Order: sequence, then structure tokens, then C-alpha cells
Amino acid sequence: MIQKIIRVLFATLFFLTAKAQENDSIAIRQIANEVLMNAKAYDNLRYLCKKIGPRLSGSAAAQKAVEATARMLKDAGADTVYLQPCMVPHWVRGEKETGYVQMANGTKYNLNLCALGNSEGTGPKGISAGVVEVRSFAELDQLGAKVIKGKIVFFNFIMNPTYITTFKAYGESGIARGAGPSRAAKYGAIGVLVRSLASNPDDFPHTGATRYNDSFPKIPAVAISTNNADWLSASLKRKMILTVYFRNTSTMLKDVSSYNVVGEMRGTLLPQEIITVGGHLDSWDLAEGAQDNGAGCVQSIEVLRVLKATGTRPKRTIRAVMFMNEENGGRGADKYLELAKLNNEHHVFALESDAGGFSPRGFSLEMPAEKIAKIQQWKNLFYEYGVYDFSSGGSGSDVGPLRAIGAALAGLRPDGQRYFDIHHAGSDVFENVSRRELHLGALNMAALIYLVDKYGL
Amino acid sequence: MIQKIIRVLFATLFFLTAKAQENDSIAIRQIANEVLMNAKAYDNLRYLCKKIGPRLSGSAAAQKAVEATARMLKDAGADTVYLQPCMVPHWVRGEKETGYVQMANGTKYNLNLCALGNSEGTGPKGISAGVVEVRSFAELDQLGAKVIKGKIVFFNFIMNPTYITTFKAYGESGIARGAGPSRAAKYGAIGVLVRSLASNPDDFPHTGATRYNDSFPKIPAVAISTNNADWLSASLKRKMILTVYFRNTSTMLKDVSSYNVVGEMRGTLLPQEIITVGGHLDSWDLAEGAQDNGAGCVQSIEVLRVLKATGTRPKRTIRAVMFMNEENGGRGADKYLELAKLNNEHHVFALESDAGGFSPRGFSLEMPAEKIAKIQQWKNLFYEYGVYDFSSGGSGSDVGPLRAIGAALAGLRPDGQRYFDIHHAGSDVFENVSRRELHLGALNMAALIYLVDKYGL
Repeated sequence: MIQKIIRVLFATLFFLTAKAQENDSIAIRQIANEVLMNAKAYDNLRYLCKKIGPRLSGSAAAQKAVEATARMLKDAGADTVYLQPCMVPHWVRGEKETGYVQMANGTKYNLNLCALGNSEGTGPKGISAGVVEVRSFAELDQLGAKVIKGKIVFFNFIMNPTYITTFKAYGESGIARGAGPSRAAKYGAIGVLVRSLASNPDDFPHTGATRYNDSFPKIPAVAISTNNADWLSASLKRKMILTVYFRNTSTMLKDVSSYNVVGEMRGTLLPQEIITVGGHLDSWDLAEGAQDNGAGCVQSIEVLRVLKATGTRPKRTIRAVMFMNEENGGRGADKYLELAKLNNEHHVFALESDAGGFSPRGFSLEMPAEKIAKIQQWKNLFYEYGVYDFSSGGSGSDVGPLRAIGAALAGLRPDGQRYFDIHHAGSDVFENVSRRELHLGALNMAALIYLVDKYGL
Repeated sequence: MIQKIIRVLFATLFFLTAKAQENDSIAIRQIANEVLMNAKAYDNLRYLCKKIGPRLSGSAAAQKAVEATARMLKDAGADTVYLQPCMVPHWVRGEKETGYVQMANGTKYNLNLCALGNSEGTGPKGISAGVVEVRSFAELDQLGAKVIKGKIVFFNFIMNPTYITTFKAYGESGIARGAGPSRAAKYGAIGVLVRSLASNPDDFPHTGATRYNDSFPKIPAVAISTNNADWLSASLKRKMILTVYFRNTSTMLKDVSSYNVVGEMRGTLLPQEIITVGGHLDSWDLAEGAQDNGAGCVQSIEVLRVLKATGTRPKRTIRAVMFMNEENGGRGADKYLELAKLNNEHHVFALESDAGGFSPRGFSLEMPAEKIAKIQQWKNLFYEYGVYDFSSGGSGSDVGPLRAIGAALAGLRPDGQRYFDIHHAGSDVFENVSRRELHLGALNMAALIYLVDKYGL
């Protein structure tokens, strides 16, 4: 008798689970169809890129982007749209940078270069010195002040082409850009050239933030294109180079006020439980910040829009957040956490899209194993939409701070093969975003938010 | 005692299997590193696109491409390189097409159009008539001769945006391009406009082959851009259109001789067993045929190169084949089968790459279930290279004929979201190919060929 009851119970459970999966599958198909037929993400991105353009923290354009995305969130159907004031660094590039190599044979060779974000300037006359190439910090340390003092250090850290995950290569070689200038200054270098963090040979300098260590002089630092870096390295080996000259007038001004933009759909059942989906609104100043990270912003707005358009009434409160100042400070993310703490908010889940609006392949999950296991049970629901990889891993720098208050975190993981062709370079423009890829990312994000809202985590 | 023996046997078997997978994993890592560091595929593609350009069957450029890929195959390390003569259709586009819409208010509106491949011309004066839009063949049949006679039929078959697999939408809507002209001619139409097979709104006309049915007059047929199609459809609904005019001078000439190009690495142990990997060398005439299908050609050449460069000595004979005339006839594929039969060849496996050189996601397997099961056992070896989907499905139109002689077939399945932005249009150029994506496809192809060669099928 007991056995029979157990059998019936199991059968019922199985039936209910199968039924739930079937209903979820239908709901996600509705979300997908709505996005693929009527998404506004691509048009919103065009606006951000073409009507507003580069949105460096502290710039007038960044302020326009705040206003524009607030409107977009309202149009998407947010119940409430509000701003979170925060102070941001105000770095300015100044005049167009110049630079060249003085060859031993008397000729000059111009370099494609740009100041790294946060870099100080050279002064109006620029700087000129002999150049020392290093391929690792160990090599730099070995050379030491004896060789480095008075020189320009050329960090030629090549992104490892054999890594399939381009972000891994970026993380590994990126230390030159972040920490290189101060490490070179420690030995008396007067300036730094950094090989651009690009996966392929190209002629664009790719900018990005450097972080000065206050213990050492803040020496000017510029990125040169990968083609320039390869040529310079080869020429140095053949002793063809006398000196390198460069000039930049960038400088850090006083902090200015800016904002995170938040659009909210209030939960019907558990409004105190907050689910965040976001990207960052600021971009570098050299291009339109289309993939980095206009894409993540418009995808997050699209998540709200499609839930509204499909008549989904979330149980929990869902927020689309445009974080300010990811690129050179992370102040928006800090502010978001600060206010969450202040208001004693209960953040159950936060999803970030900041790896570009490319064809999605998965979600990286930064949360306890049992929550990962729960999400992995939904895996089959995503397979037909191209998403198959739900692994443990980092989420993103804007939602990351929420780990301090126990939120489960995740990051969209699109295909990364083209990202470092355009990342932080003049080529990060609207034309290099695929409408279908962008929308496919948005619909998978919406599907995950839908499930987390429905079942909790 | 017997139980103990069985246990030992199982343990040994398990150990050997694990060891084999480990060795395969190392071998594939070597293949991957070699491709990612030293591949020639991207440079070869640049040559095909920029030095040779469009390679329509029967053209002088197609002949140059035959000679160039023969050289590339030699450089890649093929033991033998040879040509397979075949006759191919010689269709020529003639003068640049023109066309416009005559509006009821007296103004004219120019159309972005191009003749469909194999289309006959309008004659030097062009044709002008009222236009009838249809969205399905059922609608056309319903209208019949009474409405259609003397008119230009506008096939506005929209690629279904809700299909995640863009090829599915292409297959469904593509019937208008292939069969539409003859179906319209049956009811007395004098010409045909076909909505371009593009996933997104754009201004390019996308060409592609039409196939006349000899029972009906061969009426001229042109593709118009998706933006034009949407505008035309809206304007027709508002009764703003009087007539459409277009002019093309394309025509089918007599067959000419051309070639498949074959590069071979002779097997050391089972040379009579043949493994084919290929793409098609011909392209449409409107662009460089970079993704369609220069990519598949240079990837196939790369498979030979990387096997050679890593010191792999295949057991079986491996052939990289550049098939001629896939786009408007398939004569090269027919010839390859014909010669295989004539020479009594034993074809064990054939892999095609003709879905673009985008980031690979899987292989589509056209073979008996037990062979699919065998390949699926290797699945884990591919996961870290982005390939996870080994499903039953079609292979490709060039290796397809080999099913007649029992070959197991497969097709590379790259991400398809961007393919129909450039397919058969002026935008299918080298710049729209990602070096890393192309090479990632090649290395996964090489890994599959490596395993099939090693273990058989």
C-alpha cells in the first residue's frame, strides 16, 4: 500500500515537473517571438551610438545618455524610473595624441597611439627617450633601474592566441595596461607604450584604464596598435630604433556628478525581493561604445520591455540598471551597492551583460553550488536559443559588488571571438553589432530573469 | 575467478579508453595551437577575395581561383594536387540592372535590384507592367491567370524572424526565388520581383539561383532589397503604385569547361579509404564570395596544412576538394561522384563547410544512427573549442551526392545569425570575415577529420 502511494506521488511529481517545463517552454517561446519580431534594443542602440555617441564618464554625452535611457525605460514599460546620483572621475583626453619612432637611419615612423584612460599627460612638448621592450613583469624587474631609468618602457604583452576564451587572454595580458605604468615608474621610466589588447593584427590603438599606484610618479602611458607593436618589436631587435617620442595632454580633473539610471517593474507578490539586470552606460571616448556596452544597456531595457509586452507580471521586483562609470572607476556600481545597503534591500539575483551583444552561448554563474544546480535544471529550455553553457564563473564588474550582500550573480556569455577586434577602439561602432545577435542575447537574458522570478533562487 | 577476470578486463578497457581520450585531447590541442598560431586560411582567403574577387562559374576569375587554390594546396603539403575537368553553365549578368516604380502621383522611385542567377533578360528595352504582390504560392494559385496575366509578380516571402536557425527560414522562403518565376509564368506573368533572402532590413539585393521549369516561358526575374520590398508592399496597400519597370540583359550562354581542384594526402595504412573535406570555389558575381564560400575552401586547405604541420600521418587518404559550380548547377559535385564511381573509390566520410566561416557550434551528421553514436562519443573533445552540437541533419550540396555510394556525410554548423546579412550580396566581402572565427572553424574540422581517420567510421 505504502509502495503504491509512493509510486503515485512520484508519478504526480514527474507529471507536474514535466508540465511546468512545458509551460516554461511556451512562455519562453512567447518571449523569444516578441523579441525577434518587435524588439527595440537595436533601435535604442542606434540612438545611443549615432545620436549621442561616445559617453565617457563626466562628459556632456554621458549626461545625454542618462536622459535618453531614462526615456527608453519609461517607453519599455517600467513602473518607475529614477536616477541614483554618484560622483565620477572626470578624465579628459585633451588634444589628439601624436607619436613617432626616430629611426637610426634618420627617418621617422608615425605611431597609431592613444592615451590610456586615467593617464596623465606628457606636458605640451611631449617626451622622447630610448625605448626598452619587455614581455613580462619578471623581465622588467630583472632589468631594473639600471636599464629602465630615463627610458620609455614598451610593454609588449601579446594576447595568447591559443586561448579559445579571448577574455582569458585579455585578463592575462591586461596587467600591462593596468599596472604597467606604475611598475615602470618604480624603476625611473619616464613614459610607457602598451601593446593594444587586440586579438588580431590591426591599426587601431585600443584604450582602457590604467591604475596608478600612488607610491610612484604618475608617468604618461599610451597604447599603440598591434601592428605598430609587432613592427616596433622587430625593429628593436634589429637595432634600428634610436628613440620614441610621444605627446598627450590628457589629465584627470575634479570629480563631477553623474547618475545610474534605474527602471523598475514592481513585483506583485514579493516586491521586496529584487532582481537586477544591467549593463554600463559610460563608454570610452574613441568610439560609440556599441558593443562595450551600449549593447548590455539596450538588452537590459529590452528585458523589461518584453516582460511587459508579453503580459508577464513578475512576482519579484525587476530592475534594469544602467550603471555609470564602469570603464574608469566603477563608481556607479559602488553607489548601487551603497544604496542597497542603506535601504536594506534584499537582492536575490543580478545579471550583467558586459561582454558584448554577440551571439549568446551561455551564462557564467557566480553563486553557491546549490543555486547553480537549480539554474542548470533549466538548461534544456535554452538549448534551442543557442545557449548551452551554464558554468560557475565570474559575473561582471557592475553587479559584482552585490556579492557583499549575498546576491546570486550571473553574466551573459556571448561568443567572444570578435570582441577584442573592437574593444576600446575606434571600431566599436553600431555597424559592428548584429541585430539578430543582439536580440538573441536579450531574449535569453529575459528567459533567465523570467525563470528566476518565477521560481526564486 | 571468472568474475575477477571480467573485473580486470573492464578495468583495462576503461583505462585504455580514458588513455585514448587523453591522447586525442593532446593531439587536438596541438592541432588547435598550430591553427591559432600559424594558420594560412585567413591569408589565403584574402588572396581569393582581393586578388581574384568574384568567381562565378565559367568566368576568367573562376579559372584563376582554380590555379590559385591548386598552388595553395601544394603549399599546404598535399602529396598530389590535380584537377577534375567538368562542364559548367556559363550565365552572365550583362549590363548593370536598372528598375524603378512608377508612382500614381507621377514620381519615380528607383529600386535596388539585381537579376537572379540563371535569369533570362528583359530585352534591351526592359519591361513595364502592373505589379501583384503575393506572400505564398497558394495565394498565387488563387489569383490565377485572371489577375496575373501580363503582370509582374512580386514574391514577398519574408524570412521568418522567429526561427533561431536562419537556414530554416531561408529554406522556407527560398522557394520563391527557386521556383517562383516559372510558377508565375504559368499564369502569364511577364516578369518577377523577389524579396531578397536577408534576415534583416538592408539595401542590398541578394542574388541566387532560380530554376526554370521548361514547361513555361522563361520570364526575367530580379531580387529587390528587403527595404525596397517593405516599402513596395506598404505602397501597394495604399494604392500608390502604377507600374514597375526593370531591365536586365543577363543570359545563359553555352556550357564551358572548368574544374574541381583536389589536394590529396595519401593514407599510410588504408589509402583506398577516402575522406573528403571541401567547400565550393565558385561564388556569385556581386561580391568576393568571402563567407560563401571562400571560407569553406581555405578551411579545407587548412585541414591538410595543419595535419602536415603537426606531423600527422593519416591512415586513410584525405582529400581537400574545391568544388566548382555549387551556386548555379552543382556540376562539380556531380563530376566528383561520377569519377568516384568510375574509379570504384571507397568513400568513408565527407565533410563540407558551406555555411560560412563564422564561430563554429557543431556538426550536422548525415549518416546511419550507429555512426552518429560513434561520433557523439567524441563530443567532449570539442567542447572547449566551442563545438557542442552533433545532431542528425543534412550535410551540404557538394558532398551530398556521395550518399549514393554510401559515404557518411557531415556539414560544419557555424553560428548562422549574420550569414543572411551578406549571403549572395555585395556585402559578402573579406572584411566581413573574422580571422579567429574562420580559424576556429578550421581547427574543429581538422579535429573531426583527425578522429575519423584514426578510428574509422
